[in-house]
Amino acid sequence: MNKTTEHRIVFQPSGRAVYVLPGTTLLEAAARAGLVLQTPCGGGGTCGKCRVRVYSGQTSEAAAAPHRLPPKQAAEGWRLACSTRVAGEAVVEVPSSSMFETTQRILTSDAGHRLSVAPAVAAIALSLPPPTREDDRPDVARIEAQVGRKLDFPPTVLAGLPGQLRRNRWSVHLVHEGDRILALLPGDAPARTLGVAFDLGTTTVVGTLLDLASGQELGVSSTLNGQIPFGDDVLSRIQRVRERPDRLEELQQAAAGSLNAIAAELLRTAGARAEQVVNVTLAGNTTMQQIVCGIDPSALGEIPFAPAFARGINLPAACLGLDVNPAARVYVFPQVGGFVGGDTVSGMLAAGFDRLTRPVLLVDIGTNGEIALLHGDRILCASTAAGPAFEGARIAQGMRATTGAIEKVVVVDGEMLVNVIGNAPAAGLCGTALIDAVAEMLRHGLLDTTGRILAPDELPAATPPDLRRRLVADDGDSRLVLAAAAEGGVEISLRQRDVRELQLASGAIRAGIDALLQRAGLGPNDLEAVLLAGAFGNFIRRSNAQRIGLLPPLPHERIRFIGNASSMGAKMALVSTAERARAERLRERSQHVDLSSDPGFQMAFGMAMIFPE
Amino acid sequence: MNKTTEHRIVFQPSGRAVYVLPGTTLLEAAARAGLVLQTPCGGGGTCGKCRVRVYSGQTSEAAAAPHRLPPKQAAEGWRLACSTRVAGEAVVEVPSSSMFETTQRILTSDAGHRLSVAPAVAAIALSLPPPTREDDRPDVARIEAQVGRKLDFPPTVLAGLPGQLRRNRWSVHLVHEGDRILALLPGDAPARTLGVAFDLGTTTVVGTLLDLASGQELGVSSTLNGQIPFGDDVLSRIQRVRERPDRLEELQQAAAGSLNAIAAELLRTAGARAEQVVNVTLAGNTTMQQIVCGIDPSALGEIPFAPAFARGINLPAACLGLDVNPAARVYVFPQVGGFVGGDTVSGMLAAGFDRLTRPVLLVDIGTNGEIALLHGDRILCASTAAGPAFEGARIAQGMRATTGAIEKVVVVDGEMLVNVIGNAPAAGLCGTALIDAVAEMLRHGLLDTTGRILAPDELPAATPPDLRRRLVADDGDSRLVLAAAAEGGVEISLRQRDVRELQLASGAIRAGIDALLQRAGLGPNDLEAVLLAGAFGNFIRRSNAQRIGLLPPLPHERIRFIGNASSMGAKMALVSTAERARAERLRERSQHVDLSSDPGFQMAFGMAMIFPE
Repeated sequence: MNKTTEHRIVFQPSGRAVYVLPGTTLLEAAARAGLVLQTPCGGGGTCGKCRVRVYSGQTSEAAAAPHRLPPKQAAEGWRLACSTRVAGEAVVEVPSSSMFETTQRILTSDAGHRLSVAPAVAAIALSLPPPTREDDRPDVARIEAQVGRKLDFPPTVLAGLPGQLRRNRWSVHLVHEGDRILALLPGDAPARTLGVAFDLGTTTVVGTLLDLASGQELGVSSTLNGQIPFGDDVLSRIQRVRERPDRLEELQQAAAGSLNAIAAELLRTAGARAEQVVNVTLAGNTTMQQIVCGIDPSALGEIPFAPAFARGINLPAACLGLDVNPAARVYVFPQVGGFVGGDTVSGMLAAGFDRLTRPVLLVDIGTNGEIALLHGDRILCASTAAGPAFEGARIAQGMRATTGAIEKVVVVDGEMLVNVIGNAPAAGLCGTALIDAVAEMLRHGLLDTTGRILAPDELPAATPPDLRRRLVADDGDSRLVLAAAAEGGVEISLRQRDVRELQLASGAIRAGIDALLQRAGLGPNDLEAVLLAGAFGNFIRRSNAQRIGLLPPLPHERIRFIGNASSMGAKMALVSTAERARAERLRERSQHVDLSSDPGFQMAFGMAMIFPE
Repeated sequence: MNKTTEHRIVFQPSGRAVYVLPGTTLLEAAARAGLVLQTPCGGGGTCGKCRVRVYSGQTSEAAAAPHRLPPKQAAEGWRLACSTRVAGEAVVEVPSSSMFETTQRILTSDAGHRLSVAPAVAAIALSLPPPTREDDRPDVARIEAQVGRKLDFPPTVLAGLPGQLRRNRWSVHLVHEGDRILALLPGDAPARTLGVAFDLGTTTVVGTLLDLASGQELGVSSTLNGQIPFGDDVLSRIQRVRERPDRLEELQQAAAGSLNAIAAELLRTAGARAEQVVNVTLAGNTTMQQIVCGIDPSALGEIPFAPAFARGINLPAACLGLDVNPAARVYVFPQVGGFVGGDTVSGMLAAGFDRLTRPVLLVDIGTNGEIALLHGDRILCASTAAGPAFEGARIAQGMRATTGAIEKVVVVDGEMLVNVIGNAPAAGLCGTALIDAVAEMLRHGLLDTTGRILAPDELPAATPPDLRRRLVADDGDSRLVLAAAAEGGVEISLRQRDVRELQLASGAIRAGIDALLQRAGLGPNDLEAVLLAGAFGNFIRRSNAQRIGLLPPLPHERIRFIGNASSMGAKMALVSTAERARAERLRERSQHVDLSSDPGFQMAFGMAMIFPE
């Protein structure tokens, strides 16, 4: 039972580091580090877009990959990330030109035509003539004369306006959203205005700090959603409020606490003040969005799960209890349905759904799988209850993808290799390893298509000895040992009922995909691309996902990873009102499909429970 | 020393009652009762507009008044209020057709073309189809589909929206201001939406409850401004905040407390709930408006006294701490300058300044006299510090116009008669009596034009014995006894220094009038009318005000009383957005004249201190 050594790969200029198995492509390693590279050819080594430079360390070139780089560049260490595999420790530079376009659009300013920075909230520096007997105009009129148009001063700003103008000797920065004045900042302070883009997930919250004027990314931070103690999934949290409406506040504060923890960490790292944060965007599922806005989510727990609002809403940060400038505005993404929320719309924005012409499928695999199918002018959206198996829950030895989790299982030359996160003793397995293990078991005949693990004596004669050794009779069923008990540790195995959980989870996603395709009159091969979004989707192995039937059969290179698309869309909307308008239009084009009342879904679900031959 | 008996006059249908001296015209008695009648002829008995019906009681027809009524009507008790004098107790009906036009415009719905009811805040009754699996639209979309347009739901409304819709079984009243939803009221409750129009004076606060949909007036109530303990005039209150900024909150709460006391009384009387009050208008001087809105008034206490805002502002009632529907909107009137505030703009609106073509002067006499001169397209506005003499302050035995105050002094056939408010023993004198007494003293030679009360031995031989008896030597000066010491009471007299105070107060107003006329290149006779507004202005005797020089010499009938114009304007703006737009345009046309830097003012002030010959 081998456990191979994984190698540390450091990506520059971000400095992000990951540990990966030997043989992992640099493309996959970069994705693990949160860096999504351009792969228009699907990682086939033909387009030459995923160029990176290996500074030091060991890599091997894939034999099959035609070399698309000039010899001089190759000599300088330039490689194609898709075709270069890890062979040891390495330091790798990722030029901004190789980043996936939606990332590039925000993170780099040299892209020129692609950069779209026109934030909703901005600041104007003013230096006003003080009032005199000859010029006793009201303060507001004095400001409007210099700005050149009528402005809207809300009462909270008016309250302190006369004092602020005089204390700052008539030099101030006016923080505004269009014609609405949000706050005055002293004229001698640096006027750098900041924003935070939040991806508020049921489990994980991610925040990115951006300079609003330049679009520059100043930091990323994440934490667990503080609501977790109140229930693992959205339904348990909704139920909590349905039982006692006053618990909404408790849940709201828990979510706000997580947002505040992230904001504090981002500000500390960037050396900035909370007052400078004048705009926030927030993308999350419908339940998370409604709860954090203080909107009663009870109706999301009863048929037909109607959300409160559809268009995005814009509200003051003070309403949410955020520790940023109290006048900061918070843009909350538009929602399509009770389980197709702002995160899906944000993901469609990041994926550029409105700029694509051929059919494309966006899939965010999580406890709720959200699926959006672009077909002509229509966007069909659905959610499907995959359950928490992909996050390691309901799996006997399942765990989240953290230190100690087996995250990858691969059979090489008849031997099963596993990778454990953090180079620690194996403590359990996470969702990607679950998919990997089941796919390999199917490939090597350890599992039949109904999902039954064969008994050791049923194995074909050709079964490699390592695999044969790992299959153990287990109380009438069989189990597959992934890692033997380490010193002081436990054996990590995959059990029959774990496979059943995966069948349910995978079948739910696939049935959702098939039901939408059927409704649109499309087959899998009509899809230009399947875009995998979200933390989980970006770590699965495409061939394995297809092997277990999670993803439909279509050419491998059409399955693309687009990273945390929800977070990306939130960043785009933070620095550009045009991107917000795009998000709203995408929502308008979206049609919510209720799978539970879709006649095709139940049949597709039944069929998807059977593994492909 | 006679104190004549005053008679009770009851006006119907309002039921308001007042006590007045015999000989008082019904026009004046009605004004005392807060009922302003139409007097386009200036009360000369020629236009026939102030028709009232005397039901019972004694009145006498003025000999000089030509009878303008058909004999049949006269036989039924119809009289002209301007030409009919009180001779005993009486009950008088005032038909709505006799009310002053701005009053009529709101209070009666039969005026047709004059009634302008299109309130900013209104309610829509909705009965929505409940969501189903086939129709799982978001709640907001469901509402918008029935209303037929996009609506703006603020976060506070969204928060409770899903629960309110479901609890009320999808039947609700939507309270809205344009496209902005303010609140949801249960669908089975009466949907009568109410509003309160406030006139927030430095001393007195008046509130009127109106039905927003019909414009019907449901009650009037007034109280003293709770800020009085913090200083009599605006400057002392501003100074308080300048010394300690945290006192702004104390002053704000005191003002809000007065507004709340009035609202509570109005609601109790009308049998309505606070939740039904969804709109409020507020007209006051600049200091009062800024304080009640929580806007730092410090800059109003330093040259050049620049106000914070000019255009009217619209804010939530919750911001002001008003005990009405927390989502109610409060419209605060536009302001012209530091001492020409929303009450002046509101007064110009009530006076119809934008519908007049010939030069007109609006004067609101108070501690600050506010003067507005309409001349062509321009409106010149100024304020002048008259001081509190007209309100009884700084007068040795001065008092406000409440029970026990001598409010009227008249010499009839050589005998001085006084009227005491409330038919009580005289406890002091109020501003109108001060003007009356000084005017009578000038007429009968007891006072010279420099303002010196003659010594008893200087009196002309023709001085009537009653007046002669009342003039008493007083520590080197003289004093005029208005009322002898009653049993257990005190003597009420007018002293030399009281006359000096009146000269200062009257001179300040008159100098302001003259300075504005001079700037516009007009003489008094160019004025089509002088409109007297405010609580005080409506009780002064025009001939006496002219005798002491407070008002310029122009034909008597051109001086008109228009009642509490500020309160009237607030009512108009409460039930009509068109009236608000008129107020904003009037503000735009207004030019603030700083009298303290006006070269003509100082000279005019000096001249106005001398009583006319």
